[in-house]
Amino acid sequence: MNETTVTVVGNVATTPVYRELPSGPVARFRLAVTARHFDAVKNTWNDGHTNFFTVWARRTLGANVQASLAVDEPVIVQGRLKVRDEERGGQHWTSADIDAQTIGHDLSRGTAAFRRVLKGDGSLTQAASAREQPESEPVG
Amino acid sequence: MNETTVTVVGNVATTPVYRELPSGPVARFRLAVTARHFDAVKNTWNDGHTNFFTVWARRTLGANVQASLAVDEPVIVQGRLKVRDEERGGQHWTSADIDAQTIGHDLSRGTAAFRRVLKGDGSLTQAASAREQPESEPVG
Amino acid sequence: MNETTVTVVGNVATTPVYRELPSGPVARFRLAVTARHFDAVKNTWNDGHTNFFTVWARRTLGANVQASLAVDEPVIVQGRLKVRDEERGGQHWTSADIDAQTIGHDLSRGTAAFRRVLKGDGSLTQAASAREQPESEPVG
Amino acid sequence: MNETTVTVVGNVATTPVYRELPSGPVARFRLAVTARHFDAVKNTWNDGHTNFFTVWARRTLGANVQASLAVDEPVIVQGRLKVRDEERGGQHWTSADIDAQTIGHDLSRGTAAFRRVLKGDGSLTQAASAREQPESEPVG
Repeated sequence: MNETTVTVVGNVATTPVYRELPSGPVARFRLAVTARHFDAVKNTWNDGHTNFFTVWARRTLGANVQASLAVDEPVIVQGRLKVRDEERGGQHWTSADIDAQTIGHDLSRGTAAFRRVLKGDGSLTQAASAREQPESEPVG
Repeated sequence: MNETTVTVVGNVATTPVYRELPSGPVARFRLAVTARHFDAVKNTWNDGHTNFFTVWARRTLGANVQASLAVDEPVIVQGRLKVRDEERGGQHWTSADIDAQTIGHDLSRGTAAFRRVLKGDGSLTQAASAREQPESEPVG
Repeated sequence: MNETTVTVVGNVATTPVYRELPSGPVARFRLAVTARHFDAVKNTWNDGHTNFFTVWARRTLGANVQASLAVDEPVIVQGRLKVRDEERGGQHWTSADIDAQTIGHDLSRGTAAFRRVLKGDGSLTQAASAREQPESEPVG
Repeated sequence: MNETTVTVVGNVATTPVYRELPSGPVARFRLAVTARHFDAVKNTWNDGHTNFFTVWARRTLGANVQASLAVDEPVIVQGRLKVRDEERGGQHWTSADIDAQTIGHDLSRGTAAFRRVLKGDGSLTQAASAREQPESEPVG
């Protein structure tokens, strides 16, 4: 309840980093989301503010992200937003993470050939994850 | 303002129907979205209600949908929801359409190989669409 | 998982109907959600398509809706969308329901004086509801 | 296009600060959004991560927020998320702002008496704002 669920459309900004942890595969990458506004008077699109997020993909989704995504590819990501504050070495850091539930290539930008992964049931492992795992284990 | 934007995760339920209209390419398909609930006592997932939507993809997105999607593939769709009521032949019909902004294969279910489409700028044609097109021309 | 969660901003179109059921209070009303588009050339807003939903509010939320909402008031509603199809008397009916999680008056349209309700914990009753209740008991 | 729109349900964490700027009224406050998870085994709710946002309300919405909201009241907020990074005095700061489109008291927590504000048309001023205003003028 009261989860902050977001759907964002942007570009993969860093090569996904992949780790096999005891809790299962995890992939993470930075995502750049640039708002665009249409200027009807000039008939052009203008870029607005860019939001950067760290996207985390776990288990089946993590393994498939590793096998599918490359830098600069356009994607849609749905997941839970986590805004974090911490003090490290006297410095104040905040980060905006998305714990992804679904990620897909943006077909408004290109075509995609899909291959279903049969081994393992993403739903079951996600359920296991939701109950057993810390939500933000460091990847590396 | 006050658009009803939705993001749904489900399965392509019918083969996309593709048409080249004067206003540009249009693809449409039926999407099945089944809620699933985790039963922590039995440790199983149960299927809940299934929502069906007619998804419309226009211009570059429509052409790429036609080149990329097949029946039963898992997808994430973001777009504007339109609930319609009409009287036809003495019958009362309501339909739930989604005018898609972005569609992608669900990488929690499999892998995808993406190829960027360079000809034409989807953003510009979408802008043109937003201004010039009726929002719900029949496809066929 | 895969719930179709929507947030809509619109106007209460019918007086809320309130019932005390064995499962707890339930209020329902029709909501009109009209998209508006800004025409930058003419510098005016134009009305677009109107979506109608039947909004269901249960338990504490239902009782507070009954005490707070009147026809024509502007509201924001977040909840689960359910599109239903049925055959009744040889007629085909579809409806678009929202099972509301949160409802509030839209403060971009006016002011509101809030009074917290202490008796009963909405969270607990919602949890009970999620586990024990059919999701769509008829109200009327 | 590609705006990061979020809907969050949480509690007002600081008294709204109100300013009359040349561009119109602006109110801002901190919002605490705590995810809650139901533990079906223990039959209890557990608090999860808390996200903090700075919410900005402009023009009519800003004036009505000032007249309506107090610390600790439960609200639903819909708006555009802006994640910002900056360097200030050798320190690295990130903040998560929401540029609110709609705010309302959460009726699952209490009742509200609404009074429509007639002077001025929020829609028009929002449109004016979208075109003429810097998106993040400091309040102060």
